[in-house]
Amino acid sequence: MNAAWWKNRRVLVTGGAGFLGSNLCHALAGLGARVTALDAMFEEGGANPRNLDGAGVMLVRGDLRDTELHSLARGADVLFNLAAQTSHMGGQKDPVADININAVAQVRLVQVMREVAPGARVVHASTRQFYGRPLYLPVNEMHPVNPPDANGVSKWAGEQYWLLESRVLKRPVVSLRLTNCYGPRLRIRDAKQTFLGIWMRRLLENEPFEVWGGEQLRDLAFVDDVTAAFLGAAEHADDARVNGQVFNLGGAPPVSLRDLADLCIAANDGRGSFSTREFPADRAPIDIGSYHADDAAFRAATGWAPQVPLAQGLRRTLDWYRERLEDYL
Amino acid sequence: MNAAWWKNRRVLVTGGAGFLGSNLCHALAGLGARVTALDAMFEEGGANPRNLDGAGVMLVRGDLRDTELHSLARGADVLFNLAAQTSHMGGQKDPVADININAVAQVRLVQVMREVAPGARVVHASTRQFYGRPLYLPVNEMHPVNPPDANGVSKWAGEQYWLLESRVLKRPVVSLRLTNCYGPRLRIRDAKQTFLGIWMRRLLENEPFEVWGGEQLRDLAFVDDVTAAFLGAAEHADDARVNGQVFNLGGAPPVSLRDLADLCIAANDGRGSFSTREFPADRAPIDIGSYHADDAAFRAATGWAPQVPLAQGLRRTLDWYRERLEDYL
Repeated sequence: MNAAWWKNRRVLVTGGAGFLGSNLCHALAGLGARVTALDAMFEEGGANPRNLDGAGVMLVRGDLRDTELHSLARGADVLFNLAAQTSHMGGQKDPVADININAVAQVRLVQVMREVAPGARVVHASTRQFYGRPLYLPVNEMHPVNPPDANGVSKWAGEQYWLLESRVLKRPVVSLRLTNCYGPRLRIRDAKQTFLGIWMRRLLENEPFEVWGGEQLRDLAFVDDVTAAFLGAAEHADDARVNGQVFNLGGAPPVSLRDLADLCIAANDGRGSFSTREFPADRAPIDIGSYHADDAAFRAATGWAPQVPLAQGLRRTLDWYRERLEDYL
Repeated sequence: MNAAWWKNRRVLVTGGAGFLGSNLCHALAGLGARVTALDAMFEEGGANPRNLDGAGVMLVRGDLRDTELHSLARGADVLFNLAAQTSHMGGQKDPVADININAVAQVRLVQVMREVAPGARVVHASTRQFYGRPLYLPVNEMHPVNPPDANGVSKWAGEQYWLLESRVLKRPVVSLRLTNCYGPRLRIRDAKQTFLGIWMRRLLENEPFEVWGGEQLRDLAFVDDVTAAFLGAAEHADDARVNGQVFNLGGAPPVSLRDLADLCIAANDGRGSFSTREFPADRAPIDIGSYHADDAAFRAATGWAPQVPLAQGLRRTLDWYRERLEDYL
């Protein structure tokens, strides 16, 4: 990461009050960038107004589907594009809203960016989820796309519109297909952002938590490492090896959910307990089994590597919430 | 093809006044099916009211985005889903309309079909175009998806919503990714449906035509073979090897555009001429080079194989238009 590069850069972060977006905003502000955060503040999503406390960035509440975007995007040097409907179940319940948010509204943003920020770099937050149940592990970028739900379809489409901006207009664009991420500012009220959110809440409230399945592998990424990846992607976006590419982004070496549960308890000074149960039948279609990313391409192209071991990241996360739990319930 | 299977079947054909849809309607009516054709009759698309002359099917003019679909779909045994915005350039000019037609409206149709035709089989007309510039030839179904334009993004998304109906609800669904198709009822007014349309028009009007490039390979599919593939796909849609699958559909053995131009002139009794020019620079991003399909999977699963040699298909096409040219200009 090249701190000097960011000084006085004009940066727009969509989804800027969400988990990853807000962490990115804090980092950008610390580097001296001039940051605008846009967020629709969906009740069911990852946004929390407290996420930007102390960051010193401007938060604009607005929905990509209908907000006046020209003034927000005008003259931006970098767009970090994290706004999305990310709920699997939400996509099944209202697939029209899902595609309108994740794809149609992205087309709108693409067009505005052509008009008012034609030179801006774009880093798009994408997801492992549209790979579906992996055909092989680790999953590299050549893995076929087999979305397990409507949300995977819309997220893929939104990503592709941005990649076209690189192919057709030569705009520097990078898409990061993220694995499960965790850390401070994750939604922990429930399991809507990730299962790890509700595990954290239960641990902090001294309640047992539930592990669905247990043998599935996951490669969790600590949010500071994800933030570094976003910054690095933007800095390298005009490199020929990076521009127009999708990159899988992994995290810690894969662990089973059962081992992860044990690590969580250890990170909570040994306090806590969990039970295991079968993956619920009504969610079986979106149970993708084990996943871990092959992120060698991104490491080679940018020099990025995750720095925070899982045990340390879990402890830092629990410690962070312990001081402000009520803001996140 | 199993003629008896179709007797009295209730069939809805979206895009039923278009090139492929209308040919399918004629075949279905001939087999004794009860056919409803739905078509938005877009000015720039493949629909022509004369396409259904003599077919004996009911044509409903309506747009999937807003037409009342329940009454049309209620009790259908089979849905042939061919309605789409298929223009590459149209997708670039108005990508919001493009995704609304090809993906959001498809979600709407999916939901209506759940309500009023939960047991219907669905054959979705998909396209080779979102494979982009082939990484290898022939292109099989494992080829990565790299849409060269917005229209490829929206067509892929629309297909995926139907595949989810198979994965999640076990509805029999098949998607056929078509190569360039030709034959009677193709739009020949201009090149909006395929370059071959305008070649045919020029030949029939005794004018020279233009070949862009010339060395690119194409595997053209004659419309009667495509119709047979749609019927076979529906008949086999509940087979385990077919349900929920995408299949590439090819046609005649690949020929270069230059050789195809010579074949067209031969099929016109040796009358006609053409010039070659570079692929226009403003369309270079959507120039995908050579394409031919590996359709071995569909042949193995259904027994389908193309029957009409290219020379014969071209002659039949030209003869058909010669008698009704003014209806298609």
